[in-house]
Amino acid sequence: MSSLPNNLKQIAFFLQRLPGIGEKTANRLAFYFLRIPQADLQDFSDNIQDLKEKTKMCRICLNLTEDEICAICENANREKHTITVVEDVLDLLSFEIGNIYDGVYHVLHGKIDPLNHVGPEDIKVEELLKRLGNGSKIREVILATNLDMEGEATAMYIKNRLEELQKKSKKNFKITRLAYGLPMGANLEYADYMTLKKAIEGRNKY
Amino acid sequence: MSSLPNNLKQIAFFLQRLPGIGEKTANRLAFYFLRIPQADLQDFSDNIQDLKEKTKMCRICLNLTEDEICAICENANREKHTITVVEDVLDLLSFEIGNIYDGVYHVLHGKIDPLNHVGPEDIKVEELLKRLGNGSKIREVILATNLDMEGEATAMYIKNRLEELQKKSKKNFKITRLAYGLPMGANLEYADYMTLKKAIEGRNKY
Repeated sequence: MSSLPNNLKQIAFFLQRLPGIGEKTANRLAFYFLRIPQADLQDFSDNIQDLKEKTKMCRICLNLTEDEICAICENANREKHTITVVEDVLDLLSFEIGNIYDGVYHVLHGKIDPLNHVGPEDIKVEELLKRLGNGSKIREVILATNLDMEGEATAMYIKNRLEELQKKSKKNFKITRLAYGLPMGANLEYADYMTLKKAIEGRNKY
Repeated sequence: MSSLPNNLKQIAFFLQRLPGIGEKTANRLAFYFLRIPQADLQDFSDNIQDLKEKTKMCRICLNLTEDEICAICENANREKHTITVVEDVLDLLSFEIGNIYDGVYHVLHGKIDPLNHVGPEDIKVEELLKRLGNGSKIREVILATNLDMEGEATAMYIKNRLEELQKKSKKNFKITRLAYGLPMGANLEYADYMTLKKAIEGRNKY
């Protein structure tokens, strides 16, 4: 690599830091940059430069936004009494792309993951409790953390904290969790037995 | 995606243009940028901005360089009578990383690929002929294009052009091609028959 021009080398080094990009891919991508028109490179460069400055967390739900309050919280048509709690903004986007939900969100920006030294204090749980505390008229909190081990642990932790809050403040809102079951188009032959168990337990009238 | 801050969205759009990066990966990478220290983002941004301006082609071998002449061509210890012809700079790097070659290179910046409308005039063949023409003391040209169909066609085309040049200018240099055979650690059971055929044909005294 020593014979490479410095800019190319530095770009390849940077790209290697991104998740899922190894040395060979980083090199290939860096070379590809040379084929992109200068105007587009300039725009990309500018966007990166002030990415952090222009990207804030919504004061209400902690979604990423350019303004004080994100487009979802600001939208008068969204149902503000239902809050879906997600691990990160990409999860929020999954709901939004499908247009399947018209409530609001709370973004935790992480999940409890003791093996990687992430405890409850490292994610935005206190912000959620505070939001539910002062005279809010919340009707339901949907726990939509992932269904893996860390997501389940995070959901369980938040459920306990919410129940504490309910007792203390005599608030009465539903705490729900995303449904378990077989995904659309699933083939029973390939389903794992835990999913099948949950699908049987949660069976519905047909 | 409409609810995303503009910088994030633009960065994700840009990343989607890179080879092998789809929409989901681009989004994930763009979010990852937020976790990188501002100083490093600034450096990356600067490097991209003047990438093209600072990256030139070596006047001799067309390798990428910051100067007029690349580090390889400038190195007095390299054997200047042997030229290895490669398709692109990444192939050159493969040789350099291994430290297995002490001659110089010629970078074609492409391969003949009629299906994608790349003809001989689109790659740097004339530059090679010119380099070999004027009073050069070349002893050997090693054709090191890839061993796929386009690489073979490119090697064949260059071989013909070099033989023309030899006849016309009465120059006498060797034209060689990388050896075919089984790769190191290969298992005969899994080798394709064309490779096996080449390995038998090219068998060596042991």
